[in-house]
Amino acid sequence: MTGRLSVVGLGPGAEDLVAPRAHAAIEAAGHLLGYAPYVARVPPIPGQERHVSDNREELARARHALDLAAAGHEVAVVSSGDPGVFAMASAVFEAIEDGPAEWRAIDVQLVPGISAMFAAAARVGAPLGHDFCAISLSDNLKPWETVLQRLEAAAGADFVVALYNPVSQARPWQITRAFEVFGRHRVLSTPVVFATAVSRPDERIEVATLATAASVAADMRTVIIIGSSHTRVVDRNGPGRWVYTPRWTRVPA
Amino acid sequence: MTGRLSVVGLGPGAEDLVAPRAHAAIEAAGHLLGYAPYVARVPPIPGQERHVSDNREELARARHALDLAAAGHEVAVVSSGDPGVFAMASAVFEAIEDGPAEWRAIDVQLVPGISAMFAAAARVGAPLGHDFCAISLSDNLKPWETVLQRLEAAAGADFVVALYNPVSQARPWQITRAFEVFGRHRVLSTPVVFATAVSRPDERIEVATLATAASVAADMRTVIIIGSSHTRVVDRNGPGRWVYTPRWTRVPA
Repeated sequence: MTGRLSVVGLGPGAEDLVAPRAHAAIEAAGHLLGYAPYVARVPPIPGQERHVSDNREELARARHALDLAAAGHEVAVVSSGDPGVFAMASAVFEAIEDGPAEWRAIDVQLVPGISAMFAAAARVGAPLGHDFCAISLSDNLKPWETVLQRLEAAAGADFVVALYNPVSQARPWQITRAFEVFGRHRVLSTPVVFATAVSRPDERIEVATLATAASVAADMRTVIIIGSSHTRVVDRNGPGRWVYTPRWTRVPA
Repeated sequence: MTGRLSVVGLGPGAEDLVAPRAHAAIEAAGHLLGYAPYVARVPPIPGQERHVSDNREELARARHALDLAAAGHEVAVVSSGDPGVFAMASAVFEAIEDGPAEWRAIDVQLVPGISAMFAAAARVGAPLGHDFCAISLSDNLKPWETVLQRLEAAAGADFVVALYNPVSQARPWQITRAFEVFGRHRVLSTPVVFATAVSRPDERIEVATLATAASVAADMRTVIIIGSSHTRVVDRNGPGRWVYTPRWTRVPA
């Protein structure tokens, strides 16, 4: 008998940004798997076994979850944000493709969630209001040349860009290189939004510019949004400013 | 006395993909505004006034909502998916920037939602599992040359691409041109996902390829996801196939 595997998006962090379908999938599961801080966001459920693992063990976690589902269990893997965006869903399908044939019979359910970049955008206005790209700066799983090529393409075609995994201890220099790429294509007053731990108690939001971005603190929980040439800053009558990208663009000069 | 304006994402359509924060914002509002089919998704609330308008009247709707909020009302504008992605949030800030000074004092709350592209991805696997771009094909508000330039850049740098507003009666030819751009950069077996009315009763999901995509029906409610060179199709032991993009890329040849 084959069980079911749900890959569940918990959203950015706030409890009231979790969809009811995510709760239902978690409550139905006999086994809950995930990176420790994400599993910790789920209140304990009597009789449910929890399996926490490290951030870098996505493929091992996926295989463990598929093994449990193949044995007939109802299993949930939790992910922050949307599980399909730089998260667990791809690892699950990588494991299925390379795994035993029986894994292809597992009923895999993907529960989408509110991604960190959309929650970040919502905190400052609508910077992702027009064409945009999402790029992971990590070169753990792709060559740095590929990252640079995509940054160049996105900057050159005037996309707004959301950067995931901008900084780690092993590669503090990459984000500076990313800002340099955009500095060759955009004016230095272009807005740059830093959103760390969005919607959580320790949330930090900062609106900088390309001129000042290199001095703003970021870590692996930060999403950075770099504006297009059309992205605008609107002063508020009160604290802070809005950042938004209009729905239109002008004809290029 | 200045009121509050909430710009609320209703998610792709299914009731169990609406976040509790969206419900709270809608229930607190004395005035509800939106495109008629989106307002129709909200159960009537006693005492709440509803103002429906046409799809193309985003700026007029935003101004109406801001007027009501400036007069002290609690107002909610509903949007499908995430309000910050090709939706109402940008229109609200365009209106604020060009509007009377008092609009800048309005407490604007943005409630993020699950976007159509993430819900579409979740129905077929994880096609957005690595770097991707979201592009609106509509040239109502930007020159077609800009659309083409962005399609070329995204295709050339091997992004996965999600296309919004792929077809309208006035421009049935644009989507064909988009597939032609990708056909110059990708093999014809590249997966192309068509997802129409995702998570709703009349949902249609189709997995095609660049070779067959031009013959698949699409309308304004369709999100189309075109794979990168790394996007893979996995046969299931059962109906359908999975489509996913791995977390890694190989070194370019």
